[in-house]
Amino acid sequence: MAEDNQEWLTSLRTKIDGIDEHIQSLITQRAAIANEVAQSKSKAESGGFYYRPEREAQVLRAVKERNEGPLSDEALVRLFKEIMSACLAQQKPLNIAFLGPEGTFSEMATYRYFGHSVKAMPEATIDRVFAEVEAGVADFGVVPIENSTEGAVNNTLDMFINSPLKICGELDFPIHHNLMSKQESLENIQVIFSHRQSLAQCRMWLREHAPHIDTMAVNSNAEAARKASYNEHAAAIAGASAAAMYGLKILHKDIEDQTDNATRFLVIGKQLLAPSGDDKSSLMVAAKDEPGVLFHILRPLNDQGISMTRIESRPSKKNKWDYVFFIDVEGHVEDPQLSNAISEMQRYTSNLHILGSYPKSV
Amino acid sequence: MAEDNQEWLTSLRTKIDGIDEHIQSLITQRAAIANEVAQSKSKAESGGFYYRPEREAQVLRAVKERNEGPLSDEALVRLFKEIMSACLAQQKPLNIAFLGPEGTFSEMATYRYFGHSVKAMPEATIDRVFAEVEAGVADFGVVPIENSTEGAVNNTLDMFINSPLKICGELDFPIHHNLMSKQESLENIQVIFSHRQSLAQCRMWLREHAPHIDTMAVNSNAEAARKASYNEHAAAIAGASAAAMYGLKILHKDIEDQTDNATRFLVIGKQLLAPSGDDKSSLMVAAKDEPGVLFHILRPLNDQGISMTRIESRPSKKNKWDYVFFIDVEGHVEDPQLSNAISEMQRYTSNLHILGSYPKSV
Repeated sequence: MAEDNQEWLTSLRTKIDGIDEHIQSLITQRAAIANEVAQSKSKAESGGFYYRPEREAQVLRAVKERNEGPLSDEALVRLFKEIMSACLAQQKPLNIAFLGPEGTFSEMATYRYFGHSVKAMPEATIDRVFAEVEAGVADFGVVPIENSTEGAVNNTLDMFINSPLKICGELDFPIHHNLMSKQESLENIQVIFSHRQSLAQCRMWLREHAPHIDTMAVNSNAEAARKASYNEHAAAIAGASAAAMYGLKILHKDIEDQTDNATRFLVIGKQLLAPSGDDKSSLMVAAKDEPGVLFHILRPLNDQGISMTRIESRPSKKNKWDYVFFIDVEGHVEDPQLSNAISEMQRYTSNLHILGSYPKSV
Repeated sequence: MAEDNQEWLTSLRTKIDGIDEHIQSLITQRAAIANEVAQSKSKAESGGFYYRPEREAQVLRAVKERNEGPLSDEALVRLFKEIMSACLAQQKPLNIAFLGPEGTFSEMATYRYFGHSVKAMPEATIDRVFAEVEAGVADFGVVPIENSTEGAVNNTLDMFINSPLKICGELDFPIHHNLMSKQESLENIQVIFSHRQSLAQCRMWLREHAPHIDTMAVNSNAEAARKASYNEHAAAIAGASAAAMYGLKILHKDIEDQTDNATRFLVIGKQLLAPSGDDKSSLMVAAKDEPGVLFHILRPLNDQGISMTRIESRPSKKNKWDYVFFIDVEGHVEDPQLSNAISEMQRYTSNLHILGSYPKSV
C-alpha cells in the first residue's frame, strides 16, 4: 500500500513538473511579447510610459472572471501581478515612492499594488512622495488617503491643491485591530493604550466590552503595545505583529467596529489614464462660500445619474476660494454622462480640476 | 503609420491575453494536483509536513536550467516560488517565525525564501524564533547566521547547542552599503557614523578614500543616517533607503569591500530532509581542548574528498566539553562519502550532531 501511494505521489509530481515546464514556457513568451510592446511604443504615443494601470486592471479582471478555483481570486490576482511586474521590469524596474519608513502598511500596499519587481523608495513625508514623482525621480507614488492611523488624509488632499499630479489607481488595504495584554483577561486592566484613530475605530467594541476601562491615546500602536508590555494593569489595541514583538497575549481579535476596516491608498503619477471599462474619477472643485453653491455644483452629477462615492471639503488656503471639495464619482471622464456633468459643473465654478480617472480596485 | 502601430499593439495584447488565459489554466491545474499531493500524504510517511524544501529546490533548479531568457533566472525563480507558495497555502498558510521587527532584512529574507503566501510572525529574539518552532506554533523559522549587522551569528550558533531543531535551508541576502551626507562631497566631513560591522565591511574603501576622517560606531545604520542628517560635518554608511528617509545625498554607492557582501540566513525546522541532489550539511562537534583534536576530527572529511565550506568554533558553555565546532560541508549525510566520514569522526568525539542536510541556496 505504502509503495502504491509512493508511486502515485511520484506520478503526481511528474505531472506537476510537466505543468511547470509549460507555465515557464508561457511566461517566457509573455515576457518576449511584453518587450516588443515596450519597444514599439513611441514616446509621442504613450508619453513614454510603458506601464499602463488601466490595461493591467483589465488583465486582472479577466483573471478573476475566469477563476473557478481551487485558488482564491486574491491568490491568482497576486500571482498575475507578480508575472506582469517581472515582465515590465525587463526594461527597467519602476521606481515607486511611498510614505516610509520601510516595514509600514504603505510599503506593503506598494508591493501589493505593483508586485515585487519594482524599486520601492521610502520617503519621509507625503510632500516628498509628490515631489519625487513630479521631478520624475519616481515613476509613481503611493500615498494614504483615508482612515490611516497617521492622520494623513488631509495632508494628501492638500497636496493635490497645488500639484499637477494625477491619480492613477487606488488600493484598499485591510487593517485589523486586536486587544492585547500581559494579562489573561480584562479583569484587572485599568487602561487601554492605542493611537487615537485606532481607538476611534474600535469605539463600539470598547463601549460594549470595556465600558469602565480608561482609554489613552499614544503616538502609534507599536508604542501602545510597548507600554502595555511593562504595565500589568494595561492593555493595548494594535496589529497582531505587535503582540508577538512585545510578548503580549491577544485577548480579543478583530475588534474593529467595521469588519471591512481598511486604509485606502492612492497611486499618483503624471498620466491621465485611458478608460479601463470600470473606472472611478476624482474631481477637485474650488468654490466660494455662497449659499447653495454646493448644491449647484453637485446637481449635474445627479441629473446625469452618476453616483458619488465620496466627498470631502477642505479650506483652500488661497484667498480667492474659500473651500475645496474633493469628489469621487463612478465612471471615467471620457464617459459622455460624466463629461456632460463636468461641463455643467464648470458653469458654477471656474476652478474644477480632474484629479484622475482610474480603474476601481481589483 | 500610427494606425498600423496601434493595430500591431492590439494584436500583441491579444496574444498576451491568450497566454495569460493559458497560464491561469495551468496554475489552476497545478493547484488541484498540489491539493491531491497534500491529501495523499499520511502523517506517518511525511511526518505531517506537506512543505518539502528539498522538492522545492529541485523544481527551482529545473526552472533555472530551462531558462533561456528574456527573464532573468532570479525573476523566474521568484515567480515559481510565489506559484508554489500559493499552491501550498491552499491547505493552510505556513507559519514562519523570523527575527523581527517587521521591515527588516529578516522579514524580506523570509518572503524571498517562502514566497508571499505564508504568515510571517515577527519575534523579538532569536531564542523566541527557536522556541516557536520547537513548540510547533511556527512551521519554520528564519534566523541570521553570518555577517549580520546585528551581531546575531553567535546567538544563533549557541542556540543549536541545546535545540533539537534542524537546518532546512539557507538563503544569502545581498547587503549594500552607501556613503551618504548632507554635503556634496567628503571635503568638509570630519566623522563617518555607522554600525561597527558596516564600518568593518567597508574598511578598505575607507582607508583608500577617507583615510583622514574619523569613524564612529553607533547602534544601527539608521541611527548613523539620523545623526548625519543634523550634523553638517558628518557622513553615514547605510543602506540606500536610509538616505531617502533622512534627506541625505548618496556620495558613493556600494562601497562594501566585497561586492558579494551578504547576510546569510538559515531556515530551521523539525525535519531532517531527504537529498535534493545538490545539498550541504551542517555538523556540530563538541571536543575537549586537547592537542591535535581538531585535526583528527577534520581528517576524515579530507580523506573522503569532502570539501568543507565553513568552520566556526564557540565555547560550549558546558563543563564537559571545551569547544563546539560548527562545520559546513558539501553533500548530504546520506551520501556514502559523508556518511563514512561522519562515522570516522565519531571515533574522536562522542558528541557529533547533524544539524541538517539541506539544498544549497538556489
